[in-house]
Order: sequence, then C-alpha cells, then structure tokens
Amino acid sequence: MILKNQVEWALHCCAVMAALPEGKRVSTKALSQFHGVPKEYLSKALQAVSQAGLVEGTLGPKGGYRLARNAADISFLDIVEAVEGRRNTFNCTEIRGNNPCLEDQQKPAKPCAIARIMWQADEAWRDKLRAVSLLDLQDTLVRDVPADQLQKSADWLLSQ
Amino acid sequence: MILKNQVEWALHCCAVMAALPEGKRVSTKALSQFHGVPKEYLSKALQAVSQAGLVEGTLGPKGGYRLARNAADISFLDIVEAVEGRRNTFNCTEIRGNNPCLEDQQKPAKPCAIARIMWQADEAWRDKLRAVSLLDLQDTLVRDVPADQLQKSADWLLSQ
Repeated sequence: MILKNQVEWALHCCAVMAALPEGKRVSTKALSQFHGVPKEYLSKALQAVSQAGLVEGTLGPKGGYRLARNAADISFLDIVEAVEGRRNTFNCTEIRGNNPCLEDQQKPAKPCAIARIMWQADEAWRDKLRAVSLLDLQDTLVRDVPADQLQKSADWLLSQ
Repeated sequence: MILKNQVEWALHCCAVMAALPEGKRVSTKALSQFHGVPKEYLSKALQAVSQAGLVEGTLGPKGGYRLARNAADISFLDIVEAVEGRRNTFNCTEIRGNNPCLEDQQKPAKPCAIARIMWQADEAWRDKLRAVSLLDLQDTLVRDVPADQLQKSADWLLSQ
C-alpha cells in the first residue's frame, strides 16, 4: 500500500505556492521543471488539488496556480485526500457474513471488530496529516533551508 | 491507497486460528468456505503469513494451518506487513534535489520536511496496528459474538 507519486508532487507544489508573494502565481511548466517531474502527470496532480478547492489556476501567458486559501487552513490531509480520495485504507467486505453457520443469514448490526481496529489505525494516520498545515511546513522549511537558497528558488520560479 | 483484500482475509483467518483448541489445525478449504473467498487467492494470503512466521501449515488429509506463536505475540501489524510488505506508505523520491537553483547539486543531508511528516503519519498508523494482538481481538470477539455461534463455527471449521 503505497501513495501515488502525485501525492509527493502535490505536496511540494503546494509548499512552493505557500511561499509565493501576495498576488503571484506559478506556472505548471515552472513547477514541473523546478521539481524535475513530467509536466503532463504533474498537471493531473494540480487539477486534483484545484478540484478540491485548495489551489486555483488561471490560463494564459501570465496564468498559473496559487493557493485558494490561507496556508494555515490547508492541511497535509487536504492535499493527500485531494489526490488519493477519501476512501478508507481498509475496505471491509463483511466476509464474516459468509459464515455457513449463521442460521438466519442476518448480518451482525455492529461493525466487524477487525474493521473497527483497521479503521482506528486509518484515523490515526489521518489525524497526524490533519494536524500539519502548509504554514507549519513553511515554518519548518525556513529553519531547514538556507535563506539565500529559498530566495533564489522563489526568484527562479517567478521568472519562468 | 487501499489495502489488498488479502489483508482482510488473512486477519480473519488468523482470528479463526487464534480460537482453535490446542493442537488443532484448520484447512485452507475450510477457511475459504467459511469466509466465502476463493481458495486459490486465499492460499496466497496464507502463504504470506506463513512465510512471515506467523502461522505454520502442513500438507496432507489432516493438514492445515495453526498459529506459529501465541496469539498475544502476533499483532495486527505483523499480519498487515506479512501481506502488504514493510515499505513505507510514502515513497520520497527526493524531488527537491532536482531544484535547478542548487549550485553544487548536493542533496541536503536532512530528510525532506515533507517526507518526515508523511513518515510520522505512517508510523502513527503502524503504532495503532502494533498495539493490538490477536489475543486482544479474541477478547473483543468473545464479547461481540454469541457464545453458541462461536462454538458452532469452531465445530464446523474442525469438521471439514
């Protein structure tokens, strides 16, 4: 069970957008060159986060993407779910209902104990992702990456 | 990102084995009929948990599977990883290293902040699964399922 590469790409692109100066946009072409990923596949990831209302894109020579809301209001979970969907990682197909010893073939009312445990684990994963916003990430990146490198990258992205 | 159906099947089969009387085994055929799942695919799931050392199987007319260690010493995570593998759900391909502004093309020493957050979420998921053993599950099932139904199921499984 491994997340699509587009989750990684979408997270990196949203991190870039969170650092853009007010009113600026970044093009798909610049984002694809900056991250060294194929433009066509990256477009799909950007469309997914756009459809989820996390970013907004405009067409044209000065077009591009920017966040659709504050970086503090976009979580890792928002981005992961935009690309991967919201389906639980554990799909209970209720195989206990196939038990040949069930006389009336009624399915038990309570969800299966196995599914309940698997869903709790899924929720723990989502809780962690929900707790981190793009603003939190930005704070970490400012500590991790030298300031001149961040500035150079921002200049490069906006010059494309 | 959804777990294979075989994870569900393996968990249910191990739950059955955890309830077997001392010295008893249950056949693949009985497990497949009991859960209403195809025997050939179920065999692969059982082989996976067998290769991970969680269950042991014998061939022959009286052959079958049983747990290879105490139910208290087999966690949900053991079973999930036996079927799905141990790879992290987030695969960091280090796309930040493709940044055209990196002068010396050296990759940063510290793991990417995005990957660190994704890995923490993965670990939270695994922690939850690691914390629940087959014995814990058994305790829950005894509370959830009427005793006569458990007994009837056990009798059916061992009579096949």
